Amino acid sequence: MKNISRRDFIQTLAIAGITSAVFAPSLVSCQPRKEKLGIALVGLGYYSTDVLAPAFAHTKKCELVGIVTGSPEKAQKWKKQYNIPEKNIYNYQNFDQIANNPAIDVVYVVLPPSMHREFVVRAAKAGKHVFCEKPMAPTVADCEAMIKACADNKVKLTIGYRCQHDPNTQAYMKLGREKTLGKVQMISCAAGYFDGRTTHWKQNKAMGGGAMGDMGVYALQGARLATGEEPILVTAQHFTNRPDIYKEVDETTLFQLQFPSGAIASCQTSFGMNMNYLQVNYEKGWLKMEPFSSYTGNKGLSSQGIIDFPLLSQQAKQMDEDAEAILNNTPLLVTGEEGLRDIRVVEAIYLAAKTGKQVKIG
Amino acid sequence: MKNISRRDFIQTLAIAGITSAVFAPSLVSCQPRKEKLGIALVGLGYYSTDVLAPAFAHTKKCELVGIVTGSPEKAQKWKKQYNIPEKNIYNYQNFDQIANNPAIDVVYVVLPPSMHREFVVRAAKAGKHVFCEKPMAPTVADCEAMIKACADNKVKLTIGYRCQHDPNTQAYMKLGREKTLGKVQMISCAAGYFDGRTTHWKQNKAMGGGAMGDMGVYALQGARLATGEEPILVTAQHFTNRPDIYKEVDETTLFQLQFPSGAIASCQTSFGMNMNYLQVNYEKGWLKMEPFSSYTGNKGLSSQGIIDFPLLSQQAKQMDEDAEAILNNTPLLVTGEEGLRDIRVVEAIYLAAKTGKQVKIG
Repeated sequence: MKNISRRDFIQTLAIAGITSAVFAPSLVSCQPRKEKLGIALVGLGYYSTDVLAPAFAHTKKCELVGIVTGSPEKAQKWKKQYNIPEKNIYNYQNFDQIANNPAIDVVYVVLPPSMHREFVVRAAKAGKHVFCEKPMAPTVADCEAMIKACADNKVKLTIGYRCQHDPNTQAYMKLGREKTLGKVQMISCAAGYFDGRTTHWKQNKAMGGGAMGDMGVYALQGARLATGEEPILVTAQHFTNRPDIYKEVDETTLFQLQFPSGAIASCQTSFGMNMNYLQVNYEKGWLKMEPFSSYTGNKGLSSQGIIDFPLLSQQAKQMDEDAEAILNNTPLLVTGEEGLRDIRVVEAIYLAAKTGKQVKIG
Repeated sequence: MKNISRRDFIQTLAIAGITSAVFAPSLVSCQPRKEKLGIALVGLGYYSTDVLAPAFAHTKKCELVGIVTGSPEKAQKWKKQYNIPEKNIYNYQNFDQIANNPAIDVVYVVLPPSMHREFVVRAAKAGKHVFCEKPMAPTVADCEAMIKACADNKVKLTIGYRCQHDPNTQAYMKLGREKTLGKVQMISCAAGYFDGRTTHWKQNKAMGGGAMGDMGVYALQGARLATGEEPILVTAQHFTNRPDIYKEVDETTLFQLQFPSGAIASCQTSFGMNMNYLQVNYEKGWLKMEPFSSYTGNKGLSSQGIIDFPLLSQQAKQMDEDAEAILNNTPLLVTGEEGLRDIRVVEAIYLAAKTGKQVKIG
């Protein structure tokens, strides 16, 4: 075999029709480009167990190669079920050693919100790219620290807003952006489910619980994505029908948003009832999505026509698109800044509900 | 013919199977019972002209026999079109002479809200029963004065809540009352239309304008009727995208209500956009009505089944049922007290929006 130079090698690839863009990151580092990114899930609760892990059956650009858990029992179970090598299993104490593990490219933080900051920062310091579940963190300060840690360590950070990867969501985002039906006038958006648990982190303030920070972010996303704008004025009200359980955090929150264009949103979120819809009044038409933020089956109707793009797995599409962005060094669909934008509004909503006053943002 | 006593006459009717309740009012006054009530419309704007007058074609218990108008041109036009005798035509000055007109049993007040109190009180003093359009009046004090005047003069007062006569509305009222789907948890209700006018009474504060008092009452009725309860806590927010026109009154108002059972409502009303729906979350089901408060075609779906009772004319049914109640001396479906209940909440909503604070009712 002829001993070829790096330039000759690239030229040969170009002649073969293989674009340099696809190979750029690997070529720059002169390492063979990975076809798939190795993902380690941190926190093996419901969402990791029942939703994310099964989604890897449908991913093309990433694979489940590692886990981080505080439970030795879960570790053994996952090790068997997903054929995870012992060397890729970490606990919360030895997690930082992940820095020395080339099999793991991305750490996916699926912990209660109060733990997001710590594990995103530790993952960034370990030189790993980060997928972080929504809500990004309990406070704006947390989000800013997470963004800074990832920037400082030159790793990518994305927030697990699966809906933004869903073509059904993208369809209503497009209506807002392109103003096909005129300007948005009014949004009505509801996201809630009945949570029968009493001692889960969702009912615990210190762990980042509360309906607004959790389900409320879906309703907020509905309003922000439908307008493509950031709210400037917020009012909000808390309610509970289970004061014994919802002592520390909100069970039900209504919030109202005003946007720079004059669009207004009336949103509802709750751990006390099932609701999942987005309705938009445009100057020249309307949109109804129901459900608008489920794992599957999101669909709707606008005065322009049906919105119904069936999708096998939002989570697989989300992880693959994020993996592609990392592999190709292209912009992520959902950045840490996007997560921060929501938390900025969530903070304002909590302040508005607490004080009973309008809160201005920005 | 045998000269029979009044008691004998009643006994004869009873034997013939004719209940005394049906005949009671006429018998008491010993005058022949009218088959139809003669109605005089006061104020010949859009609603009288395009909606109420045509509805008399479908009434069985009342007929349009008189008009009260400030416009001699309208008087002439209506006189011809509806064959109204000259003696049954009044203007706002000579209106009180209606007291001497036995052809007119009911005065139907269809004026701007600011004029309701004056004309309801004058009609009551003239000894006429009163139909009064919604909103009942701009203030609670007005409503109380109207109720008192009617009581003092022993005439009946009903408010033109046509929807309460609509079987579609009655279907969702029943769901709330009988709790077939469990308790009401959350209501989302919207009532609005785009009003392109700039100098109508709807844009004029002194005449009783503003979205909340007008269309807002529909959204409020949606919440009150769906729960069958009275709100105890109110918050509200005003918005406008046409500040040049909506200087004095609200263009768009969002309001939130809490009910004694714990049910909450998020409502929207506007003169800036078309919206007409009611959505209810029950403990064990849901309801969606759209439209819920149109003149025709109200319909919906609940987790229990379709709600769709086509109705030729809400207004004809409303007027006939109110006429029946007067003829039979039975309770009216919608009393003045019901109109007052709404205005009590409307006042609280305006106060809440103005102060930015929660307002307690009752």
